Amino acid sequence: MNAQLSSLIEDLDKVRKHSPLVHNITNDVVMNNTANALLAIGASPVMAHAIEEVEDMVSIASALVLNIGTLDSSKVKAMLLAANKAKQLNTPIVFDPVGVGATAYRNTVAEQILQQCKPTIIRGNASEIMALAKVNTKTKGVDSTVSSDSAIDLAKQLAKSYACVVVVSGEIDYITDGKEILEVKNGHTLMQRVTGMGCSATALIGAFVAVNNDVLKAAYNAMVVMGIAGELAAANASGNGSMQVNFLDELYKIDQAIIKMYFKA
Amino acid sequence: MNAQLSSLIEDLDKVRKHSPLVHNITNDVVMNNTANALLAIGASPVMAHAIEEVEDMVSIASALVLNIGTLDSSKVKAMLLAANKAKQLNTPIVFDPVGVGATAYRNTVAEQILQQCKPTIIRGNASEIMALAKVNTKTKGVDSTVSSDSAIDLAKQLAKSYACVVVVSGEIDYITDGKEILEVKNGHTLMQRVTGMGCSATALIGAFVAVNNDVLKAAYNAMVVMGIAGELAAANASGNGSMQVNFLDELYKIDQAIIKMYFKA
Amino acid sequence: MNAQLSSLIEDLDKVRKHSPLVHNITNDVVMNNTANALLAIGASPVMAHAIEEVEDMVSIASALVLNIGTLDSSKVKAMLLAANKAKQLNTPIVFDPVGVGATAYRNTVAEQILQQCKPTIIRGNASEIMALAKVNTKTKGVDSTVSSDSAIDLAKQLAKSYACVVVVSGEIDYITDGKEILEVKNGHTLMQRVTGMGCSATALIGAFVAVNNDVLKAAYNAMVVMGIAGELAAANASGNGSMQVNFLDELYKIDQAIIKMYFKA
Repeated sequence: MNAQLSSLIEDLDKVRKHSPLVHNITNDVVMNNTANALLAIGASPVMAHAIEEVEDMVSIASALVLNIGTLDSSKVKAMLLAANKAKQLNTPIVFDPVGVGATAYRNTVAEQILQQCKPTIIRGNASEIMALAKVNTKTKGVDSTVSSDSAIDLAKQLAKSYACVVVVSGEIDYITDGKEILEVKNGHTLMQRVTGMGCSATALIGAFVAVNNDVLKAAYNAMVVMGIAGELAAANASGNGSMQVNFLDELYKIDQAIIKMYFKA
Repeated sequence: MNAQLSSLIEDLDKVRKHSPLVHNITNDVVMNNTANALLAIGASPVMAHAIEEVEDMVSIASALVLNIGTLDSSKVKAMLLAANKAKQLNTPIVFDPVGVGATAYRNTVAEQILQQCKPTIIRGNASEIMALAKVNTKTKGVDSTVSSDSAIDLAKQLAKSYACVVVVSGEIDYITDGKEILEVKNGHTLMQRVTGMGCSATALIGAFVAVNNDVLKAAYNAMVVMGIAGELAAANASGNGSMQVNFLDELYKIDQAIIKMYFKA
Repeated sequence: MNAQLSSLIEDLDKVRKHSPLVHNITNDVVMNNTANALLAIGASPVMAHAIEEVEDMVSIASALVLNIGTLDSSKVKAMLLAANKAKQLNTPIVFDPVGVGATAYRNTVAEQILQQCKPTIIRGNASEIMALAKVNTKTKGVDSTVSSDSAIDLAKQLAKSYACVVVVSGEIDYITDGKEILEVKNGHTLMQRVTGMGCSATALIGAFVAVNNDVLKAAYNAMVVMGIAGELAAANASGNGSMQVNFLDELYKIDQAIIKMYFKA
């Protein structure tokens, strides 16, 4: 077995053995799916966004996930408080800049999170990563058609600027720390037709980085698990309804044998 | 093929081709289903309710959906801001007065939305449409048993008063612009046992009115799609769990051949 | 048929016949599941948390469910207002202290609800009930490993202190009014891997206590229904995705014959 797969299987075993608590401050659309995705893989999810408790909650968590899908000023304040505490405790922070580029407010908030929270990992689709990189260079807006190459270059630049790992989700997922670039070839287009699939990916990254200090590998491992579960789910789906259900079942069932059989090098 | 079906199939093709962005300010119970229903039919959903961004978001959207299922003062403010911008841009507004008649607050908010937002289309069940019409005539409350005839008359009156199209969902759906009344005979009673089915109908109307300027026809076409998908979903459901999943799958699969086979004239 | 089963079947018939309105002020993660669980069993759910309307809403409801899973100061205020009105109207209150013990804020809020709302029934897992009992005795925190015996003793003490019924969910569910202890042996471990299963239990208790003045029996009956539906759902599940769907289907289908066949005395 190659080193990549060994690392993946080791992480998966650790997630199931230690059931790390992943604290999510996330959007209202996907909370249920995200919690179930974390439960399916063996982690322990908690969703909490009250300003009064986020610092306490993140203090007992092994990873913090920030997602601005349905942001408001109160949630943003909670994110900044939780992230500040996470930084003090060296707890990894995963940031999902949902919809950045769509509105000036999202750009402002995303920049605030980048600057103040210094995420350990950022995950977005090509448009979001591109918009985020542009925010960084003080421009606004998002291109609707994005070339993968451009996204990769900007992802590397973003990773370097913030000393973090950047994940670009797409037909091929790219994971970079600004130097190395890893590619995940597993996955299925039907995943794009289920709301919150990207948010689930971000949460799973939280579970993997909670058990693996090698941040690049943790992000890569989580994305391989996403991709294989997505492929297997799509094989028996007849639409995005069954896709959503099957995906959780496949996350629940995934193991060493399945990973070895379906992993695309 | 008759003119009704031609229009429906044309709309469906346009939704799938152009993937119109539908901006939803909706309730916390149904956000996931609504987003998935829009994705299933081929539209592009966005859920956003921050006061700081709703005007920007609706500016890039092709339709605005307002739903007061779990309203609060902040969401109401966001709805009014978004609707005002939508009006300026001639973007259609679809209003779902969930639970109007149940509390004085919902009646007040519903009236505010009617007066200030002037929705393009209103969709509710018979009780809600009746309550809304009564709000309009300054009375409160809602009758728990509502005759279809009464609902139709009040729907016509409401449509005339606000120069909009009104959809009354039920065993038969009625769609009226105050003059003409169209009837949709497709559908299944199990749809009432799944939370947010009406909210999905409202969102689909948003997708259809985004691609068809004939508002009456757009609303009618969306309701036929709802009805057929609901019937087919119920045929293989063994409860409201599988009904919810099947419904999304049927929306995903629906096409010209299915519509022609199952449409009830 | 023994007296326990007669009572259960009578309650189920009443829920389906009268379709009691259950008013939920609950968390953002489980709203959809909770609403669908109530619809599946035949009750009528409403989710409403605006301070402006909770008193009106609870006034037309037959039970009030309070759940602090994703609490914030506004929801807490709404809970206290609604509970106060419920008390005036002798409407039963079911309290789900999700995550109590995890943060100081949850402990404070849980104590406030205990003191000011005087719930009719409290349902939690062993850790939560233990934490709640400790809050009551002015200590903080929660033990991660909890012996069933300790939980039972604390549950009895809590029930006595607040003159309420306490439900401890687990492999065996314990239901106590401080004197008697009833046990539910139905259930399946896969239920713990679906988010919000406990919240659904709490909501179902709301539906049963809405039709049965014998609070201890109502809580017991709801938990038996949960357990049987969970077992049957697990029998055909291949992960937590299908488990969530099957569970709703089984609640929808459950009837006298199924209960008699699967009830574990």
